[in-house]
Amino acid sequence: MKYEFSARAHTLLSSPQLSIRTQMRRGSLISLAEELPAEELFPLSLLAEAASTVISADAGALQYGDPEGYAPLRDWLTGDWLTAKGVKVTEGGVLLTTGSQQAVDLLSRVYIDPGDRVLVENPTSPGFLQALRMQGAVIIPVQGDREGLLPDHLRRQIQQHRPKMLFATPSFTNPSGILWSLQRRMEVLELCASYNVLIVEDDSYGDLHFQRHGEPPGKKYPSLYALENVSTGGHVLYIGSFSKTVAPALRTGWAAGSRELIGMMTAAKQMADWQSSTLNQRLLHHLLDASAFDLREHIALLNREYNTRLKLMAELLKRPAWKNSSYDMPDGGMFLWVSLPVGLDALALLKCALGKGVAFLPGPLCSVDGGANYIRLNFSHPGRDELLLGMNLMSEAVTEFTARS
Amino acid sequence: MKYEFSARAHTLLSSPQLSIRTQMRRGSLISLAEELPAEELFPLSLLAEAASTVISADAGALQYGDPEGYAPLRDWLTGDWLTAKGVKVTEGGVLLTTGSQQAVDLLSRVYIDPGDRVLVENPTSPGFLQALRMQGAVIIPVQGDREGLLPDHLRRQIQQHRPKMLFATPSFTNPSGILWSLQRRMEVLELCASYNVLIVEDDSYGDLHFQRHGEPPGKKYPSLYALENVSTGGHVLYIGSFSKTVAPALRTGWAAGSRELIGMMTAAKQMADWQSSTLNQRLLHHLLDASAFDLREHIALLNREYNTRLKLMAELLKRPAWKNSSYDMPDGGMFLWVSLPVGLDALALLKCALGKGVAFLPGPLCSVDGGANYIRLNFSHPGRDELLLGMNLMSEAVTEFTARS
Repeated sequence: MKYEFSARAHTLLSSPQLSIRTQMRRGSLISLAEELPAEELFPLSLLAEAASTVISADAGALQYGDPEGYAPLRDWLTGDWLTAKGVKVTEGGVLLTTGSQQAVDLLSRVYIDPGDRVLVENPTSPGFLQALRMQGAVIIPVQGDREGLLPDHLRRQIQQHRPKMLFATPSFTNPSGILWSLQRRMEVLELCASYNVLIVEDDSYGDLHFQRHGEPPGKKYPSLYALENVSTGGHVLYIGSFSKTVAPALRTGWAAGSRELIGMMTAAKQMADWQSSTLNQRLLHHLLDASAFDLREHIALLNREYNTRLKLMAELLKRPAWKNSSYDMPDGGMFLWVSLPVGLDALALLKCALGKGVAFLPGPLCSVDGGANYIRLNFSHPGRDELLLGMNLMSEAVTEFTARS
Repeated sequence: MKYEFSARAHTLLSSPQLSIRTQMRRGSLISLAEELPAEELFPLSLLAEAASTVISADAGALQYGDPEGYAPLRDWLTGDWLTAKGVKVTEGGVLLTTGSQQAVDLLSRVYIDPGDRVLVENPTSPGFLQALRMQGAVIIPVQGDREGLLPDHLRRQIQQHRPKMLFATPSFTNPSGILWSLQRRMEVLELCASYNVLIVEDDSYGDLHFQRHGEPPGKKYPSLYALENVSTGGHVLYIGSFSKTVAPALRTGWAAGSRELIGMMTAAKQMADWQSSTLNQRLLHHLLDASAFDLREHIALLNREYNTRLKLMAELLKRPAWKNSSYDMPDGGMFLWVSLPVGLDALALLKCALGKGVAFLPGPLCSVDGGANYIRLNFSHPGRDELLLGMNLMSEAVTEFTARS
């Protein structure tokens, strides 16, 4: 039959991530394209034990649960864990979601009508851009530097476009890895609050903050959500995830915010899929609360290993192939955002790289417009040997282009 | 801050299911309102074993997977299981979702623009109505009888409204429990195909088909999807779920259809939440494929027990309180759809029943308009004692109203 898809359905098909993944499955590609954690560090045996205990203990673990998510896990989260980050959550102010992406999508659905203006960092998360485009938002980029968004440009964009929202990742922006300074955090919060712009703050990478050996401890800035006075607040929706710190297949992210906002998102959640998996949420809760697993220690382990991989990747980027490339060394996260030599197009390079057996994320996927001269490289997933091999293939691909010109 | 929600977000807040659930949590209500399976029949020990095996075997069980879902589970599903039902699925023609509700929502998002007309049975699933309202569809009811939709009325509604879709549950319609006859199935399929109306066929309850003792075997009609010639087809999207037959907390439903339709839904799935839980899908696959669990036997067990509960409920509905009520006895599913004595309003009755400690689903939630005189009673979840107690309280509530008038 001849299908008549909805007006914005076509925005979904532009996703080269889908086609990269399809190609990866067919061959044996090394992927520097995705945002996967290192699976060799998953707490497998503790999770296997947790699963067995949780399922045997109570048939309720396999029954439908609440759309808000398993209450003891919400309590764990909003207890010591978020409190230690200065994040206060009121009763009814947290919703468990299927990863952080679902929180982004649900909020977009309850807050954005077609034609509404939404501000983003540029470059920004491909997942934000997809959700916003599907919702018909007009996406407005705000300029930034190494300290975060530029307040003057933010003010001008607000005054000119009257946006409803700002999507931002102040701690290790995907893909640029930028950590906003405290000053910028306060300025952005103040500006958005004064113009009634809702801030969606994705803190999925915030815990992946590396302490480098011999360097002073990394600066741990409070989130925008923590900086806002809760009693007068509500301007920030705070999003996080266990996908990067425990395991993605548990598909557990969360949104924290005002009761009004979370209430509306919970209603949308129920309409979208009733609820995420109670079983996964109970597993996670058992792991965190009643097993030998220590999330802080585990994150420290991840950060040591990811920092090693990042440094290896940075070392490999010193090779001649990359001499006209550049990047800023991040203090955390999962990505390097690399500018290519002038004239080298990321999509053309991707085609060549895929032919050689390596994938990366081309800049346009992270960009409101442009980005053709950038690539995003993931350093958290590939083991050291794979990283070495993948970067060798990348160097070959770059050399093929630069040697020609 | 003052929030400016999207234009249709308010449609979500009208959900009395949310408020029934909130009230249930606060007290100790007996719920005849929801669509929960009997948790005492969950295959707990086999699932606990599966979980332990799957997690220990392979870190991939905890990693991100494909947006389409775990390939071996898709293969299992489209192999003998669906083939035995006459359901043929082509390569790329199946998507695993977070329950059947997500399949409904994803399709609505990629297929419906605000103002598009969509046909539904009336009464119909509250989940369909929510997803369609959120998408801004104009919902058009089609009349039916005990055999299914009335072809003449369907034709008139198609000719008058030019709808894009029909949502239907031919096997044990939620809430009415109707099983469409083969004749009606063929007529509806032919009509929709000739007018290019996409049929969304929810078969989530199809397996809950009771063989009554001493009665001839139930008539197992093919699904609309199975009736359509696959090579010329594409007019039916077929939706199913393991929530009713194995366990809801695994959150695994599916959609099967043409490659084009499933491809678009997969792209929407990736945007909405990247993917459902690989872990849950692997658990389910291990249970179905490599354990002592036999899904057909398990379904037979469920059906024996649910039939017993249904008959108990029917027995209790013979009490004097219900003398001016009526219902059709279904051959399967999870619900009785009861018309109340004239003048008795379902929402007023709900208030009274909640006060007594029992909940049900009021008819308006299942209705395009009206339905005030109907209630939906679930017989699959409450155990026999609970069912007895719950129906006692219901009888009391009804009597309070009818005694007054």
